[in-house]
Amino acid sequence: MTSSPSREVERLRVAMLAPISWRVPPRHYGPWEQFVSLLTEGLVRRGVDVTLFATADSSTTARLVAIAPTGYSEDATLDAKVWESLHISAVFERAGEYDIIHNSFDFLPLTYSGLVETPVVTTIHGLSSERILPVYKKYNDSGYYVAISDADRHDRLDYVATIHHGIDMEAFPLYPDTGGYLLFFGRIHPDKGTSEAIDVARLAGLRLIIGGIVQDDAYFERHVEPRVDGVNVIYLGPVGPEARGALLGGARALLHLISFDEPFGFSVVEAMATGTPVVAHPRGSMRELIRDGENGFLVESVEDAVAAVGAAGAVDRGAVRDSVVDKFDVERMVDDYLAVYQHVIDDHRARRGPVPTRG
Amino acid sequence: MTSSPSREVERLRVAMLAPISWRVPPRHYGPWEQFVSLLTEGLVRRGVDVTLFATADSSTTARLVAIAPTGYSEDATLDAKVWESLHISAVFERAGEYDIIHNSFDFLPLTYSGLVETPVVTTIHGLSSERILPVYKKYNDSGYYVAISDADRHDRLDYVATIHHGIDMEAFPLYPDTGGYLLFFGRIHPDKGTSEAIDVARLAGLRLIIGGIVQDDAYFERHVEPRVDGVNVIYLGPVGPEARGALLGGARALLHLISFDEPFGFSVVEAMATGTPVVAHPRGSMRELIRDGENGFLVESVEDAVAAVGAAGAVDRGAVRDSVVDKFDVERMVDDYLAVYQHVIDDHRARRGPVPTRG
Repeated sequence: MTSSPSREVERLRVAMLAPISWRVPPRHYGPWEQFVSLLTEGLVRRGVDVTLFATADSSTTARLVAIAPTGYSEDATLDAKVWESLHISAVFERAGEYDIIHNSFDFLPLTYSGLVETPVVTTIHGLSSERILPVYKKYNDSGYYVAISDADRHDRLDYVATIHHGIDMEAFPLYPDTGGYLLFFGRIHPDKGTSEAIDVARLAGLRLIIGGIVQDDAYFERHVEPRVDGVNVIYLGPVGPEARGALLGGARALLHLISFDEPFGFSVVEAMATGTPVVAHPRGSMRELIRDGENGFLVESVEDAVAAVGAAGAVDRGAVRDSVVDKFDVERMVDDYLAVYQHVIDDHRARRGPVPTRG
Repeated sequence: MTSSPSREVERLRVAMLAPISWRVPPRHYGPWEQFVSLLTEGLVRRGVDVTLFATADSSTTARLVAIAPTGYSEDATLDAKVWESLHISAVFERAGEYDIIHNSFDFLPLTYSGLVETPVVTTIHGLSSERILPVYKKYNDSGYYVAISDADRHDRLDYVATIHHGIDMEAFPLYPDTGGYLLFFGRIHPDKGTSEAIDVARLAGLRLIIGGIVQDDAYFERHVEPRVDGVNVIYLGPVGPEARGALLGGARALLHLISFDEPFGFSVVEAMATGTPVVAHPRGSMRELIRDGENGFLVESVEDAVAAVGAAGAVDRGAVRDSVVDKFDVERMVDDYLAVYQHVIDDHRARRGPVPTRG
């Protein structure tokens, strides 16, 4: 036996609570699950003892504990509330085995957090609605909240940090040549501006490729599908991770004409990693991700977007990649979370005071 | 000060966890909330120290702890998941203050129950779907389940008891005279056979009065509303508790032509308390509530129902009331639950073994 028990004891024990809408990592769409996968694998590389609570069809180098067989968005026979509550309770019923629980499952786990002694860090992946604020407010003092962008911080909540997501820079290498098409990448939904992207591509005289899941059927049927002709406007359907780098890297620009305050945009950073500039409305986190005129363009109108697409052809794609390669690298994100974990563990210990030994 | 502290200490401390779909007691519809109200008030009369967790607009002689302002079925601005989880966690965060927690909130509270030392009794108000069974199965050994009828017992779950609901017999006095109309009472939904009740009334040549909330809009608009003429078929809308006794008592028969396995039927017992016989399909708990030919009629078809309506006019209404007055009295239900509480507390203590004193 060559193991070193004394060293084992020192390893940080993290319970990583993933959502179960999709498996980890997601087959195509699933940014919360994508984040969990990137962070989990990064922590394991650093020697952290991570137990990942995720669907049974998930894939990880961490220890996997699975309650739900698969994601409830992937199997309509699964009752979301049943599997969510079984999944979450499984973590909390083993809370004593971990130094920290990292929650990426929105507000519901917070309502279990007051019943265990292990501190819980919650990454808030966007406040979907003011209606969920009562839970975040209740646990504001005891919870340790991480924002994924400064833009997404709510003025009535306290946060231990803002930590931008990182990506695997090797999976998104530089594509040095200016691409010949425009790209819409993400869920098909009015929030994301799919229809506006078609307008811009038409006016710019460039082909538009659309990749992503249909999240709003009525919008797709009314505003997108009738304009897909297979030549000037192409719809690929959902795009898995293996094709994503090439698709992003081959574009002249990513059109990200969002009409909501997006808390973060994985595809925005991924595009820039490949050298592709992003044309975006300056909503939500976009000002934190894009430097106007350097690695993308912040535009207010369709006309401005068309002009930006013209300018995108002259952008130095190597400089676009350089602008994100350190700032949004997954290792930077892992560093940031390790610092938060240490802060939380120390703060939690200080608040609790000395703990009596129990048999 | 005349209080007797030593006696205070002996009082059973029950946390009563009500649903928050409606307030307690409900203004009109809400059988789970109706049950909670009847039991809570009954326990308070026996001197039990009951803390009722329910909506803020609830009314009780117990101590009320309210998190949600009102029922989420009464205020569409309330997010059900947010208020459910805050409401449930509030009970479990105070679990140490109670000898027992009585859960009438279906499966979600079970997923918190493993995190506290207080035993939890769950009244299963009907298994709405096989899809929720995984939670009940997980907590089958540690949970203490009460069925509300033998018919509703699931063969893969264990129960500590079947306890039929009781009602306040004084609120439903005998109406000795044979009524001149037929009554449909309950939510308007295909499960409940509203349309079939109209068929039976028409064939029997009797007026039908319909009282209850519309739960299935499409069914109401297609199959019920067009047949409401205000003379032969009358729709009253939801009926509050103050009018219920007179409405049930004035009917010749209650038509309860259900097409699902109803776990219990408050209106069935309430009707019989007033002397009104019930004509029902023999689904679910009906064989436990109705004795065919004595206090009602179990029928398979519309034709049999029409014949039963004829026979209903000759029924001894006093005998109908006598058949339920002891069996379904609220005090019998309170006795049964007190016995279950004692069993659960004893069993839970025996399973845990001696508990070390903590500071």
